[in-house]
Amino acid sequence: MDLLNNYLIYLIPVFGLIGIVFMAIKAAWVTKQDAGDGEMTKLAGYIADGAMAFLRAEWKILSYFVVVAGLLLAYSGTTVKTSSPVIAISFVCGAFLSAFAGYLGMRIATKANVRTTQAARTSLAQALKVSFTGGTVMGLGVAGLAIIGLGSLFIVFYTMYVRSQGLNVNGEGMAKALDVLAGFSLGAESIALFARVGGGIYTKAADVGADLVGKVEAGIPEDDVRNPATIADNVGDNVGDVAGMGADLFGSYVATMLATMVLGREIVSPDNFGGIAPILLPMVIAGLGLIFSIVGAAFVRIKNETDSVQKALNFGNWTSIILTAIATYFVVMWMLPDSSFHMMRDEIADGGVKEGSIQFTKMGVFGAIAVGLVVGTLMSMITEYYTAMGKRPVLSIIRQSSTGHATNIIGGLSVGMESTVLPILVLASGIYGSYHFAGLYGVAIAAAGMMATTAMQLSIDAFGPIADNAGGIAEMSRLPEEVRHRTDNLDAVGNTTAATGKGFAIASAALTSLALFAAFVGVAGIEHIDIYKADVLAGLFVGGMIPFIFSSLAISAVGRAAMAMVEEVRRQFREIPGIMEYTGKPEYEKCVAISTKASIREMVAPGLIALLTPIIIGFLFGPEVLGGLLAGVTVSGVLMGIFQSNAGGAWDNAKKSFEKGVMINGEMFYKKSEPHKASVTGDTVGDPFKDTSGPSMNILIKLMSIVSLVIAPHLHKEVKHSERLQKQLQERSMITHVLKVEKKA
Amino acid sequence: MDLLNNYLIYLIPVFGLIGIVFMAIKAAWVTKQDAGDGEMTKLAGYIADGAMAFLRAEWKILSYFVVVAGLLLAYSGTTVKTSSPVIAISFVCGAFLSAFAGYLGMRIATKANVRTTQAARTSLAQALKVSFTGGTVMGLGVAGLAIIGLGSLFIVFYTMYVRSQGLNVNGEGMAKALDVLAGFSLGAESIALFARVGGGIYTKAADVGADLVGKVEAGIPEDDVRNPATIADNVGDNVGDVAGMGADLFGSYVATMLATMVLGREIVSPDNFGGIAPILLPMVIAGLGLIFSIVGAAFVRIKNETDSVQKALNFGNWTSIILTAIATYFVVMWMLPDSSFHMMRDEIADGGVKEGSIQFTKMGVFGAIAVGLVVGTLMSMITEYYTAMGKRPVLSIIRQSSTGHATNIIGGLSVGMESTVLPILVLASGIYGSYHFAGLYGVAIAAAGMMATTAMQLSIDAFGPIADNAGGIAEMSRLPEEVRHRTDNLDAVGNTTAATGKGFAIASAALTSLALFAAFVGVAGIEHIDIYKADVLAGLFVGGMIPFIFSSLAISAVGRAAMAMVEEVRRQFREIPGIMEYTGKPEYEKCVAISTKASIREMVAPGLIALLTPIIIGFLFGPEVLGGLLAGVTVSGVLMGIFQSNAGGAWDNAKKSFEKGVMINGEMFYKKSEPHKASVTGDTVGDPFKDTSGPSMNILIKLMSIVSLVIAPHLHKEVKHSERLQKQLQERSMITHVLKVEKKA
Repeated sequence: MDLLNNYLIYLIPVFGLIGIVFMAIKAAWVTKQDAGDGEMTKLAGYIADGAMAFLRAEWKILSYFVVVAGLLLAYSGTTVKTSSPVIAISFVCGAFLSAFAGYLGMRIATKANVRTTQAARTSLAQALKVSFTGGTVMGLGVAGLAIIGLGSLFIVFYTMYVRSQGLNVNGEGMAKALDVLAGFSLGAESIALFARVGGGIYTKAADVGADLVGKVEAGIPEDDVRNPATIADNVGDNVGDVAGMGADLFGSYVATMLATMVLGREIVSPDNFGGIAPILLPMVIAGLGLIFSIVGAAFVRIKNETDSVQKALNFGNWTSIILTAIATYFVVMWMLPDSSFHMMRDEIADGGVKEGSIQFTKMGVFGAIAVGLVVGTLMSMITEYYTAMGKRPVLSIIRQSSTGHATNIIGGLSVGMESTVLPILVLASGIYGSYHFAGLYGVAIAAAGMMATTAMQLSIDAFGPIADNAGGIAEMSRLPEEVRHRTDNLDAVGNTTAATGKGFAIASAALTSLALFAAFVGVAGIEHIDIYKADVLAGLFVGGMIPFIFSSLAISAVGRAAMAMVEEVRRQFREIPGIMEYTGKPEYEKCVAISTKASIREMVAPGLIALLTPIIIGFLFGPEVLGGLLAGVTVSGVLMGIFQSNAGGAWDNAKKSFEKGVMINGEMFYKKSEPHKASVTGDTVGDPFKDTSGPSMNILIKLMSIVSLVIAPHLHKEVKHSERLQKQLQERSMITHVLKVEKKA
Repeated sequence: MDLLNNYLIYLIPVFGLIGIVFMAIKAAWVTKQDAGDGEMTKLAGYIADGAMAFLRAEWKILSYFVVVAGLLLAYSGTTVKTSSPVIAISFVCGAFLSAFAGYLGMRIATKANVRTTQAARTSLAQALKVSFTGGTVMGLGVAGLAIIGLGSLFIVFYTMYVRSQGLNVNGEGMAKALDVLAGFSLGAESIALFARVGGGIYTKAADVGADLVGKVEAGIPEDDVRNPATIADNVGDNVGDVAGMGADLFGSYVATMLATMVLGREIVSPDNFGGIAPILLPMVIAGLGLIFSIVGAAFVRIKNETDSVQKALNFGNWTSIILTAIATYFVVMWMLPDSSFHMMRDEIADGGVKEGSIQFTKMGVFGAIAVGLVVGTLMSMITEYYTAMGKRPVLSIIRQSSTGHATNIIGGLSVGMESTVLPILVLASGIYGSYHFAGLYGVAIAAAGMMATTAMQLSIDAFGPIADNAGGIAEMSRLPEEVRHRTDNLDAVGNTTAATGKGFAIASAALTSLALFAAFVGVAGIEHIDIYKADVLAGLFVGGMIPFIFSSLAISAVGRAAMAMVEEVRRQFREIPGIMEYTGKPEYEKCVAISTKASIREMVAPGLIALLTPIIIGFLFGPEVLGGLLAGVTVSGVLMGIFQSNAGGAWDNAKKSFEKGVMINGEMFYKKSEPHKASVTGDTVGDPFKDTSGPSMNILIKLMSIVSLVIAPHLHKEVKHSERLQKQLQERSMITHVLKVEKKA
């Protein structure tokens, strides 16, 4: 046990390595599956090429960005005592690993899609196995690389700044180690911004463009090989839903750990692991979650054609969550002392130990983690309710489709707005509850607990677009009915998991931002964020507005790009003879290029808003106003994220309901009926809502918080920060002393 | 001068009386104008009866509410030392005067409409004169009654609690007087809630219902006498845009004065007007604004058919604003001492006079007022830009209408979201600037300055629906082309003023809420609202969510009511023979009854949310969490208000542009073209946005703030409040002492 006590820190990257080994095994398994006949592999090849073309174009831009931002960071690291130019290395590592995880996931996804189609020729069970295994490669890759990266860098910086200097674990050296480590999270989140926003614009420009000309004007079905934009549409599923979602969760996963570690530095926990147990805990929990995600994934399987795919996924998911929760309980009991103290930010001088500090038990910490797990689960369930077929919200939109396009839109907007109520109440209770259990550290560790099984969540998320692509390939290759029936079955489950995944992603982004917010306040050396002050209140207003302009830019970018796509598809239909008769080959690559170019160009403006606003406000008006801004962004961003994602999801399923036929006032309506046409309008409006602007809110709020955390040491007078650290050290020795006295007594 | 010094307080209601006298003269003038022939008066009679029917139904519900709330207030007034059961009387007065002002305005508006139609038979100049004079009756009535009510009650309470007790003007007696006076504002704002929300639901249920069956199904034009819902539609213009807007501004007008007075109590300003100059100032400014609104109104006139109506309105408006600003300058210089001190809320005990207090000059106060005027003007201008024909935002929606319903909707949503940016920056700068000039008192007096010319603003606002109605009556009576041309001219101007009026109303609501927020913090006896505390942050989240659910309820209420209207109109077309041939008479009153019932029923749920949430949160979690909630409601409410109002306005004018013909990609499109149909969808979605949910955000944020202010004395331990008042008294005598010493030196 003593050995473990000393070497636990080195065990953390090992968790990550185990994840990567399993990822490699699964990737190899997927690759050696049969990829089907010539037509299928040709189409899959187009998709894979298109996806890689997007990644290359994105990387080119990003490499410039990473170099410039890295140099700025390196310079800024020289200007304050509690930072270092080394932060630039951290940053580059974070950016690289996030991009690499996205690459691995997309690479395998574009292999798994066609292999799933081929497997669907045999059985549903085999098709599920191939597609879900493809998803786990993404899940394990993201979680594994994140833990390896964060864990290893922490070992390096801990050795450099704390252990080798013989400094106090709650003191300046640790503050520096964690500040430098924050660069890793900043790097990851920056990539996530461009992947999520760029990917979101890509996928919806292609989707809307393909639908407007193909379905509406030319009257050919979705995923028809004659549509020049169909390959771009299928590429979009990969860059938006696989790479975008992966980068988003990679960012959240890293940021929650980091924020908890930053807050953990302020916890006095003398006897355990050299006093750094509260700092190590989030990484250990993440490691456990990764291992049990591997275990849970093994349970995702079915035997017969009639078995429920959804149930299999749920069973695997719950297995990993429950096992992780149990293991977390024992780890918390083992690692933490009976009671810990969070050093107060203010009143340290005049308050005594017991009054000035917040005290919490280890059971409290586990309570906070449990709160996080419950919040995540509830958010997913609520999202599913608001977007599922057959439930009240979607039914109300269906009913309102019977009086036309306008009432369908009104219905969807109303549902989306209403759907913010329960998630916000859950989130507010979660904040309240986790704080009650373990103070601000509790809020952060709740987020970490929720994110523990990220590997599993992401496996399920990535399964969706793979199944969707598999269906697309089956359709384009005109495979037999029974094959398409199987891929449709998987695709339908994928739509549900997409909705719940979005709920989870928003919840994780919200809790992550709050954890980062709490960490920011500590590092910035401020004591309050008092919205009663006029300037802070002004910051709150400006912050609240940012998600609106960000959404507006994202939505209108999709509109513009979709119109360019429409022009191109119309041109091809006009100029290339024989497309409609399958004798002329459409120029897929031109459509791919349009989506790629548009998404790269359009992601710049929103990206700059997210990156520069906190820097400008912070340096012009100081950390407290920046705190107000962050609070405004977070509240408004979470609301707009839920509103837009759920409205979009509900419109989508209202439209899908017509494909099976729905009863309105005693009359049945099907595809091509007037109400169905109205529902298509809603679905098209919902597309950028649910896949571009809605999910990009996650990145926006996280990125602005992490930028603030990174610039925090520069925002206050260094003297004050050093003073505070000094005071905390004094307090720490007082607490330690009291604890010893109590122990003897 | 000494005489004025002593009796200024009695002069305030006199300003109000002057307003009422002018109102009576103008009302008499309108009434004695020619109302036209039998058909016209019959139709106008239906509209007037419908409007009164709505008012009666609303009053019935409201009288229950006023009695119950009054009793609760009276009881609560007995439980704390700084309040009194008398607050219930204040409350009833506020409710009654607000309702009475609405009654007067609507009464004259339903007379002015048909008389404008008749006047339009002679000349445009005469038609403008009648319709604008009708509007001024509303404007002068609202402002006059508000000043009389607030001014007189203040005299009564000042005499009761301060003068007769010989108490210090900054002390407990004045706190009590102002607390009791807050009941007046609560009463006014409660009526405004039901008038605005109920009126908004009424008008859009009728409008959407009439359009969906009349225009779309039966193919008859708007305002066609054969449409059973057409009377309800015209009634809606009156109850929504006249009575609703009037009650909204009555509420803002009163609330800004009150909030400034509450903050004024904390200003030490020893020598002037027995020390209450900062308390009297907002009422004096309002009085001046009223007088100069009467002056400005005299300049609103044209001579020839080709003169610009818009220019005439602008000229009158600017005259009143500029004269008020000049007069305000002299009044501020006369009333205030060279420098005033705002007693600090915290650190009173340890800070000295100069450190503990915020000091500002009288020039600073005037600067803050100027900021308010600039904010109001800019907000109106920005709103106009985003909703005006021929400008980029509306043109972009027109272009996006060419690819269908969905892209039209996406375009409008994007414009609406984008349109939040500038107003928020203006507002944030306004907060920052006015605080810079004169502290929190500056923020409040900026709002008061902006609201000073409410009488003029409201005259212009009320002119719009009168002109709209006049056009409707001309259409229904099938009057000659030239008459309709004149009323259309007025109506077009009315549409612009409706947009700018909304910008003004939102700005006023935002500043009013902030002023109330500042007043609340003082009365609740808290020192900070620290969003770094988990529970306050949770409050911020919940607060931010409320405008979403409120909007959702309002929008879906319109949807439901419109569907009921559609059913009824369809029934009448089916069952009453000869409607289409003008031989059968539609049952207008049935449609009026549907709108009335629906609006009364549907306004209850949002009303209760607005009233009860602050009470529940305040008593369960305390004043600081309630402060977080208020900040969340205000930020999110302002954003949602601007977003929805501007999106709706832009969609409306995009549709209207097609009536004149628009050029898209070199091709002309007119009414009945496919892009025009898409624009009709946007307009229908925008209807509840711009006339129901959008404007109701104003009331929501104001009402929740005023409820919080009223319950504030109950939320903290009385000892603490008394202690604070005691400390402030000490501080006051210190400041006075220092000032005297400085004067001698």
